[in-house]
Amino acid sequence: MTLAERWMLPDGITEILPADASRIETLRRRLLDLYHSWGYDLVIPPMVEFADSLLIGLGRDIELSTFRVTDQISGRMMGIRADITPQTARIDAHSFPRSGANRLCYAGHVLHTRPRTPHGSRAPIQTGAELYGNGSLDADIEIISLMLETLAAAGIDEVHLDLGHVAIFRSIIARAGLDEEREAALFRLVQDKVQTELGSWLEQNVADADLRTWLLALPGLHGGREMLADAAAALAGAPSQVSEALQELTRVAEVIAQRYPQTRLFFDLGELRGYDYESGLVFAAYTPGHGHAVANGGRYDGIGAVFGRARPATGFSTDLSLLGSLGTVAFSEPGIILAPVEADPDLWALVAELRQSGERVISELGDDPELRQRCDRQLVREDGKWQLVPL
Amino acid sequence: MTLAERWMLPDGITEILPADASRIETLRRRLLDLYHSWGYDLVIPPMVEFADSLLIGLGRDIELSTFRVTDQISGRMMGIRADITPQTARIDAHSFPRSGANRLCYAGHVLHTRPRTPHGSRAPIQTGAELYGNGSLDADIEIISLMLETLAAAGIDEVHLDLGHVAIFRSIIARAGLDEEREAALFRLVQDKVQTELGSWLEQNVADADLRTWLLALPGLHGGREMLADAAAALAGAPSQVSEALQELTRVAEVIAQRYPQTRLFFDLGELRGYDYESGLVFAAYTPGHGHAVANGGRYDGIGAVFGRARPATGFSTDLSLLGSLGTVAFSEPGIILAPVEADPDLWALVAELRQSGERVISELGDDPELRQRCDRQLVREDGKWQLVPL
Repeated sequence: MTLAERWMLPDGITEILPADASRIETLRRRLLDLYHSWGYDLVIPPMVEFADSLLIGLGRDIELSTFRVTDQISGRMMGIRADITPQTARIDAHSFPRSGANRLCYAGHVLHTRPRTPHGSRAPIQTGAELYGNGSLDADIEIISLMLETLAAAGIDEVHLDLGHVAIFRSIIARAGLDEEREAALFRLVQDKVQTELGSWLEQNVADADLRTWLLALPGLHGGREMLADAAAALAGAPSQVSEALQELTRVAEVIAQRYPQTRLFFDLGELRGYDYESGLVFAAYTPGHGHAVANGGRYDGIGAVFGRARPATGFSTDLSLLGSLGTVAFSEPGIILAPVEADPDLWALVAELRQSGERVISELGDDPELRQRCDRQLVREDGKWQLVPL
Repeated sequence: MTLAERWMLPDGITEILPADASRIETLRRRLLDLYHSWGYDLVIPPMVEFADSLLIGLGRDIELSTFRVTDQISGRMMGIRADITPQTARIDAHSFPRSGANRLCYAGHVLHTRPRTPHGSRAPIQTGAELYGNGSLDADIEIISLMLETLAAAGIDEVHLDLGHVAIFRSIIARAGLDEEREAALFRLVQDKVQTELGSWLEQNVADADLRTWLLALPGLHGGREMLADAAAALAGAPSQVSEALQELTRVAEVIAQRYPQTRLFFDLGELRGYDYESGLVFAAYTPGHGHAVANGGRYDGIGAVFGRARPATGFSTDLSLLGSLGTVAFSEPGIILAPVEADPDLWALVAELRQSGERVISELGDDPELRQRCDRQLVREDGKWQLVPL
């Protein structure tokens, strides 16, 4: 084997070296402090669990994304987590249940068998917050607000917030009575916004003319807040969940526009991301210069059902290493003090004191020109006393 | 599948719930700040790498401890890291080389196929520091000091430091010229301290009477600082590396006793932990009430050779979740402020301000008696102004 082969990291797997690591650590603390101040309790779920606990019907994407290994103790299949959300659902259902709202947050590595976006990471540091036990729109608004606060804390000023609502598509197709295969085909046509194909497919597969009109309208219903009124007209007569969903979107827009006037709001009724498990509002945040969402989330009521506790749930997550690499987190490296190595207890006491006061003090273990270059001050003995002098 | 099966975590895999998570997060920050103040740069190596990069001849234990998965992109075998040290060796050799001393630190999950100690964790949060590029005893002393500072930061007051030196056993058996199989047998007998068996084995396998005397003495050479003089007498005439090693141990004892007078020092010349890759001083810290080492380390010069850069190296590591669970980290949870959900921008601005000042403010999304019980103050409107009142 060549040396280069030993150095090489797998595609989509990166190591984080000192400058970036300090930036990411700074941001990590800022975000966990932010979530704490909003009442979210930190949990640290394990990297690995039985596959049955991780793969709880959140769709084929996550099944395919999850590395599996055999547990040598139980002989059962385990999965390396590809998503932390199912773990928080288990915690809310079983290990840390609360009768009322349960606010949980986390920051940890996940692993994907393949990157989710071209050239994306296969090992993001998933960081987010989940709110269990409250089905109100206020809970969604709290989570969306916290997602926007997260991006602000990361120094991302220009944010586009995309909002959708899967109950619109879900309630319309419920009336169409399609089998699973046709529902999947229709889902893809709406999601891919291929309106001509969608039209002919609807002619062949959906008898009800109203349903055809509504479904054909969906891919075109995207835009700013003014689009919501057009949508109400285009979807007039649709199941009551549709107008309720439009009212929810309108209300979210009002509150978010008031709280975060800099954030640009977009609505997309054909956006069906996370359709496999999302149940209501879905949202994603974008920033110019990055082609994919930098954070996203939504409502996914009932996710805890497989653990015996189906509760309302809404949450968001982001990738801490992505936010860190966008490089907008201010981060200052203080100067370094060079200290000699001597057995003098006075030196040792002074070094300890400087370090405790927040200074960075490095011992020079033999001649080290590179280290000297990084230091701006040094400790020297003058007249029998240790003094800090410029270097 | 029953619900209980879905809740269950694999043996030796634990999740960390809010109170412990806060304690561990507090300690994590304290330790990374400590390492930073000593000049150690944080790195965040990936959870997964090609198996060839992780398994670099550090012994059979780590080979057997490492979960392997197939990389679907390259078709090559990857390993889930069971140890972060080889990753830092790669970083020192290749991605973050320095001409002088390279001080690196880390805190991250590792995964073991089987627990290393009975009822031990299979998913410790390995936390430690490594010093590359300096072979002096001062480097070892710096690392041992930092390990002791780590335990002090974790609130562990009573520490026993065990010191050994693998060069003693290594230089003696080098002269015996044993084949691999016999060396392994001898290793086990010395490590297990079975002196009678060791005696008869030596009679049959080692011709040189001096060598037999020295090897037979090793398992009995343990105790306080006074034992080092006995050892010098018992090993008189042994290869020069033996007396050099004894001098190193004596010097370490002097400095550590001066700097950390509370720490109890023990020496064990038959201690061969990490013999597969350690090359000099080895050390482990114990605390009453916990049967296994809470931190350990040693010198492992040349670890980077497989990456093309064999440098002196010394380091230590511990398990952050273990330190956290020992429960000695002081941790205070401030009071919580309950806030109503209202669209009033004044309320929103006040809540934001309180949160920024370090207060924890939770919105009451509908009636939530459990939440009310946790709060000690609430925001109420009095005479048209928002006031903080006791709850």
